[in-house]
Amino acid sequence: MLVKYDLESIAATVKKADLLTRGNSMWRYAEWLPVSDPASVVSLGEGGTPLLRMDAMQRRYGVQGVYVKREEQNPTGSFKARGFAAAVSLLKEKGVAKAAVPSNGNAASALAAYAARAGMEAVVIVPGDCPGMIIEECIRYGAHTYQVDGLIHDAGRIIEDGKQEQGWFNAGTLREPGRVEGKKTMGLEIAEQLGWKLPDVIIYPTGGGSGIIGLWKAFQELREMNWIEGELPRLVSVQEAGCQPIVDALQAGSAGEGAVASENATSSPTGLRVPKPPDGNLVVSIIRETGGTAVAVSKEDIRRAQTELGLQGISSSPEGAAAWAGFARLREAGWIKPAETAVVFNTSHADKYIDWIPRVAPAVVRTYNDLKPLYESRRRG
Amino acid sequence: MLVKYDLESIAATVKKADLLTRGNSMWRYAEWLPVSDPASVVSLGEGGTPLLRMDAMQRRYGVQGVYVKREEQNPTGSFKARGFAAAVSLLKEKGVAKAAVPSNGNAASALAAYAARAGMEAVVIVPGDCPGMIIEECIRYGAHTYQVDGLIHDAGRIIEDGKQEQGWFNAGTLREPGRVEGKKTMGLEIAEQLGWKLPDVIIYPTGGGSGIIGLWKAFQELREMNWIEGELPRLVSVQEAGCQPIVDALQAGSAGEGAVASENATSSPTGLRVPKPPDGNLVVSIIRETGGTAVAVSKEDIRRAQTELGLQGISSSPEGAAAWAGFARLREAGWIKPAETAVVFNTSHADKYIDWIPRVAPAVVRTYNDLKPLYESRRRG
Ligand SMILES: Cc1ncc(COP(=O)(O)O)c(C=O)c1O
Ligand SMILES: Cc1ncc(COP(=O)(O)O)c(C=O)c1O
Repeated sequence: MLVKYDLESIAATVKKADLLTRGNSMWRYAEWLPVSDPASVVSLGEGGTPLLRMDAMQRRYGVQGVYVKREEQNPTGSFKARGFAAAVSLLKEKGVAKAAVPSNGNAASALAAYAARAGMEAVVIVPGDCPGMIIEECIRYGAHTYQVDGLIHDAGRIIEDGKQEQGWFNAGTLREPGRVEGKKTMGLEIAEQLGWKLPDVIIYPTGGGSGIIGLWKAFQELREMNWIEGELPRLVSVQEAGCQPIVDALQAGSAGEGAVASENATSSPTGLRVPKPPDGNLVVSIIRETGGTAVAVSKEDIRRAQTELGLQGISSSPEGAAAWAGFARLREAGWIKPAETAVVFNTSHADKYIDWIPRVAPAVVRTYNDLKPLYESRRRG
Repeated sequence: MLVKYDLESIAATVKKADLLTRGNSMWRYAEWLPVSDPASVVSLGEGGTPLLRMDAMQRRYGVQGVYVKREEQNPTGSFKARGFAAAVSLLKEKGVAKAAVPSNGNAASALAAYAARAGMEAVVIVPGDCPGMIIEECIRYGAHTYQVDGLIHDAGRIIEDGKQEQGWFNAGTLREPGRVEGKKTMGLEIAEQLGWKLPDVIIYPTGGGSGIIGLWKAFQELREMNWIEGELPRLVSVQEAGCQPIVDALQAGSAGEGAVASENATSSPTGLRVPKPPDGNLVVSIIRETGGTAVAVSKEDIRRAQTELGLQGISSSPEGAAAWAGFARLREAGWIKPAETAVVFNTSHADKYIDWIPRVAPAVVRTYNDLKPLYESRRRG
C-alpha cells in the first residue's frame, strides 16, 4: 500500500526554491502525492499548519528546542484532513461514488467533509461513545452517520460486510494508499519549516499508526533525494494507558507478528483507542529503526498536559495533550537531552471533546462593584 | 487610531517576491504592522488561512468566481486571532501587565490566548448568553472570565469603571491601534492569494466593524504603494435582522453622526450583536466610498446558509453563514453580476455555537443487518 515515486526524476525537476512560489496547502508537495491530474484534487485548504516554538516551555523543561505542530488548524479540526484530501482525490479519479470509513471520530468527519466537497456519498460508523461534537460535524457535512455498539474494528466489520451489496469503497486505515500519502505531507512540511534540518525527536499520539508511518515515509523520500542529511528523527508513539498495543509490543521486544493487540480497551474514547492496529507491526518496526520509543500516559497526565498547553494559549485535544505529556515524561527521564530539539504533534483541538469537560459557569455581574470583590479574591488566589 | 506608515519607504525596501521567502503567518507582512521589535511579536500561528474557490457554488449561483476565506482556521478558531496577535504584541512592547476586553465571545477567547502566550493577565467580560464553548475556551487560556447581565457595551462600561483601580488596559474595539492593524492582514493576504488582483466584491459579517475597516485600510495602503490597480472591491456588511445599525444607517442615507445605534437588539448572541458600534460612522462611510452595501439576514437565512456550506464540506459559524446568506441574496438580486468575483468571509466555525444546534443522535447498530434497512430507507429519501 505504500506508493513508490520516481524520486530521482522529482529531484531532477523540483528544486527547494520552487516550493516558495506555490500556495500554502499540502498540495505544494504535488510531486510527492499520488494524484496525477490537478483537476482531481479535492481540497478544503488542508496543510500549511503552524509550527510553533514554545519558548516558555523550553525554559521550563530545560531543552534547546520544543515546537508544537498545530494540526488542529486544518479543515475539520484535525490532521485527518490531509489523509482524506489525498484519499478522496484518488477515489474521485477512480470514479468511486460511495466511500465508507470506520473511525473513532476525526477520520469520519474528515471523510464526510471531503466527500461532500467531491460530491461523493459518505458512510461513517463511529463507536457509541464518540464525542457528540464530532457526530454533529459528520451530519453537517451530509454523511450517512451511524454508531456501532462496539469499538472501531467492529465498525470496520460492518463496512466489510456491506461493501459488496452497497457498492461502498472501504477507506479505512491500510485499505487504500491516499491516507498515508496525505499524512506524509506533515513530514515534508516540518522539514521545510525547519529549513530542511530535522528535529532530533518527533512525538506523535498513535492510534492506527498512520501518522507515524506518514512521517517516516516523508523522511525516507527526502533522504533518498538528498534533500535532508544525517540521522532521521527518533519517532515516538504516545498512547493512553488502557489501550497501548504499540507500547506493549515494543516492551515485549517481540518481532512483531501477532504481538500487537490490546484486548478490552479501557482508555478514553479518543483517536488513540485502536486495540488492534492493522499496521501495528510496521509502526513498531519504524519506531525501532529510528531509535524511537513508545510511552503510555494516564488520563491524569493528559489532563495536566491539556492545562499546561492551555495556559500557553493552545487548545489541545486529549490526543495532542497525550503527546505533550509524552514529551514531558521523556524530557524528565533524560531520554530527550537538553541540547536536543523535539516536535510535538497537537493533532486536534479541545472543543471536539467538550462534552467531557466539566462546564464551569462564570459569575454573572451587572456593575464593576459586583465584579471587584470576585476578581480581587481570585487574584489573591 | 489608524496607524500611518511610510509607504514609500516600504515600497522601496520590499518587493512582492520578497514575501515568498517568508513564513506563512500574518507576520510575513511585518512592514505593514506597528510592532517594531521582532522580539515583541506574540504569535500563535495566526493568518495564512485558505482562500477556497467554491466551484460547485459558482455553477449554482451563476457567477464567475466565489471564494470562501476560511478564517475559522486561525488559532482560537476565528479572525479575532489576527487582531489580538498585533494588539497583545503592542501591549507587551509597552510593558502592559493586565489587559481587559468586553466581547461577544471570540475577542474574549483571542485576548485570553494571546495574553497567555505573552505571560500577561487577561480579564474578559461577555454577555450572559455567550456560547458556553467560548467561555470554556477563555477559562482554558487562564483568563479572568465574567458574564455581564446585559450586552457588549454594558461589559465595556464595567471595564471603563474598573480600569483605573485595577490597572487594566482596555483592549476593546477602537481603544488601541493593534486590532485593526492585525485584521488588515486579511486584506493583504487576499490580495497576495489572488495574485494582486482584487475581487469585485468582499462580503463580511459586521458587528463592531473592525473587519471592514481593516480590509479597507489594507487596500488603501496597497494602492498607495502601487501594488494593486483599478477600483477597490465593493465592501459589503452583513448583519442579522434585529441588530442592524449599519444597515439602518446606510438606508437612512444619514451623514452618520449619531445615526448608528440599534436599541433593543433581538438578534442571536453572536459577534454581530453590537447595537452601538463605536466605529459605526467610519464603517458606513467606507461602505459608501467603495460603492458597497449592507444587508440584514434572518435567522432562517443563516440556518439555510450554514447547511449549504456544510454540504460543501465547510463548517461555518452563524456569522460566516450570515455572510454567505448575504452573498446569495445579492447575487440573486443581481447586485453581484454574473461576470464578477466575490470573496465571502467565514469568520469562525460551527462548533463554537454547538449549544444552539439541536443534537441528533444517530442510530446505534451492531451488525450490517441492523444498518442495512436504515441506510437504504434514508437513501431512498
Ligand atoms: C486527534 C487524533 N490524534 C491522533 C490519532 C491517531 O492517529 P493514527 O491513527 O494515525 O495513529 C487520531 C486518530 O483517530 C486522532 O483523531
Ligand atoms: C465570528 C465573528 N464574526 C464576525 C464578527 C464581527 O466582526 P467585527 O466586529 O470586526 O465587525 C465577530 C465579532 O465578534 C465574530 O466573532
